[in-house]
Amino acid sequence: MGGRLLWEDGVCRVVLVEGEEAQAFPGYCRVVWRAHVAEMSALEPSARARLMDVVVAVESVLCEIVQPDKINLASLGNLVPHLHWHVIPRWRDDSHFPAPIWAPAVRPAPHRPPPVAETIASRLAQRLSGTS
Amino acid sequence: MGGRLLWEDGVCRVVLVEGEEAQAFPGYCRVVWRAHVAEMSALEPSARARLMDVVVAVESVLCEIVQPDKINLASLGNLVPHLHWHVIPRWRDDSHFPAPIWAPAVRPAPHRPPPVAETIASRLAQRLSGTS
Repeated sequence: MGGRLLWEDGVCRVVLVEGEEAQAFPGYCRVVWRAHVAEMSALEPSARARLMDVVVAVESVLCEIVQPDKINLASLGNLVPHLHWHVIPRWRDDSHFPAPIWAPAVRPAPHRPPPVAETIASRLAQRLSGTS
Repeated sequence: MGGRLLWEDGVCRVVLVEGEEAQAFPGYCRVVWRAHVAEMSALEPSARARLMDVVVAVESVLCEIVQPDKINLASLGNLVPHLHWHVIPRWRDDSHFPAPIWAPAVRPAPHRPPPVAETIASRLAQRLSGTS
């Protein structure tokens, strides 16, 4: 699960997705749990709460910075059964709206300027500092 | 967001999805937040924690009862911007695996017996009693 590292602590990391998915959904991030577990229910409650705090922090920061019409959250892991969350900004005119991004596209992706990775990284660091 | 009611408290409800999706993914549930909010980040931390506790309880109970190969969790809400979670049991031979269920199907759905709704309901009630 590559991408540009935006934030990490001892238990998870946040990466900014790159490539075609990032062009279609600028700001698309993944939150990846460090230890190898497949399901949320396999985490201790405190670890699970921490992971969701990070996911929601990413959601909040993306809402501020890329101002999407909606955020989609998903933990799937069928191909890579290692716990990770997709945090996906959505717009009413994006390539797949209102369908999930895994459905067939319904229109060309409009051009949106990509967010500045450093801006997302610094807001995440502010929001998550001292919360672990 | 219809379906058979399995459990509810003052803040959210769990429904068993019915129809074609339920035949393809037996045990597919939705967890629906009662108040009208669109995003997880719009909830107070305690409310968010409660909602995730319910989502994870559904995941755990489905793992016990339908014994899937994987669970998929998603909060999308593009069509219905009212906070709700999909809790979807997946099997390696299901109609879409390993793709998300919103992608095109890759094979016919194998027949699996549907879970008994009352069994899911009673295990959920056990797991969530006294935890609100």
